[in-house]
Amino acid sequence: MARMEVSRDGNGVESRPSRASVGRLSLYLRRLEDLEREGSGTVSSVQLGDAVGVTDAQVRKDLAHIGSLGQPGIGYPTPELITAIRRVLGLDREWSVAVVGIGNLSRALLRYRGFPQRGFRIVALFDTDASKVGQRLDGLPIHSLDQLPEVLAECKAELGLVAVPAEAAQKVADALVAAGIRGLLNFAPAVLRLPANVNLVSVDLTVQLEQLAFLVQMSAD
Amino acid sequence: MARMEVSRDGNGVESRPSRASVGRLSLYLRRLEDLEREGSGTVSSVQLGDAVGVTDAQVRKDLAHIGSLGQPGIGYPTPELITAIRRVLGLDREWSVAVVGIGNLSRALLRYRGFPQRGFRIVALFDTDASKVGQRLDGLPIHSLDQLPEVLAECKAELGLVAVPAEAAQKVADALVAAGIRGLLNFAPAVLRLPANVNLVSVDLTVQLEQLAFLVQMSAD
Repeated sequence: MARMEVSRDGNGVESRPSRASVGRLSLYLRRLEDLEREGSGTVSSVQLGDAVGVTDAQVRKDLAHIGSLGQPGIGYPTPELITAIRRVLGLDREWSVAVVGIGNLSRALLRYRGFPQRGFRIVALFDTDASKVGQRLDGLPIHSLDQLPEVLAECKAELGLVAVPAEAAQKVADALVAAGIRGLLNFAPAVLRLPANVNLVSVDLTVQLEQLAFLVQMSAD
Repeated sequence: MARMEVSRDGNGVESRPSRASVGRLSLYLRRLEDLEREGSGTVSSVQLGDAVGVTDAQVRKDLAHIGSLGQPGIGYPTPELITAIRRVLGLDREWSVAVVGIGNLSRALLRYRGFPQRGFRIVALFDTDASKVGQRLDGLPIHSLDQLPEVLAECKAELGLVAVPAEAAQKVADALVAAGIRGLLNFAPAVLRLPANVNLVSVDLTVQLEQLAFLVQMSAD
């Protein structure tokens, strides 16, 4: 597999490729899939750049990193580029996801069509609230945290989605790691300490809103 | 106000400062507030870098951009740095937010303590579903989209949070822009076309999960 550049991102986690590059690959992929549905056989770096809001030079650089070289004046073959990006992103397979913390956010994520479309299958639900344990949600039973090891061993979930209050997040993360989870998507507004072999992506929704407020304030200056 | 560097981000939107820098300022701020609560009067670039996962050189660069210079061997004064970052991020004031699309995600966001703590006040709710219009949620009435202009004129919301299905997102965005909204936080998996004077931050949760899958796959190679 082609290597991408090594860097550290701005979101609190060391990672080999830049998060920005990986994020752009996801966004190129969305545009490419639209183009393929529209019957387009080739795509230019200018088209991809316009869709994502970067220069065509940046597009060529990102795609060269994953080993895809377009032809001057012709562009990139759409289906081959889709296949290459899906392979690099690990989307040519299914990922099983365990969700801990069954509140409104998890309910929203369970019904989010984008996850199954991308091969992310939610296979197990957990909550610490005894009144929720044993209930079913979208066909899945809600387990207690004590059941994590046995349930994860059975369903083979590799990714964990943490949607619990900040004060419970580290305990939940530790339990997921102990049960063999290899990556965590964390929605709790807490900094998690994880072993080096477990990957972490944190989604802090306040940071997004702060970015927006900043942009609005700057544009009003 | 000090200027930050000009760049384009990887998330589909042109913006003057780099999103990564603004995101790091948000994360430094969280750490600084913790340190202040713990009674720390000064903070070093190494401490801030460790908390956010970047080098101390990156911290010094980010903070120099906003006009804050630490003293070698002493560091940055914690309270002054908090004030400076809050001012640059536009957090020294309240922001009123209108929410369109009252599903599980919006319910989760309404109860998210981080928003009011940061000065983001949800002041108006809208939905296209006639059965929801007229109901109240956390003390706020749910309005129909038709009522957007009058309700926004009254509550003076400047930011809009779009939590509707992808196919409805552009129509909702257009209505919010027509009613005078200056920035949109978009959760719908759709590319929105907005006038140049309206700012956009899009949160695509699938992109986050794809980044995690990619990191897990890379670390297993």
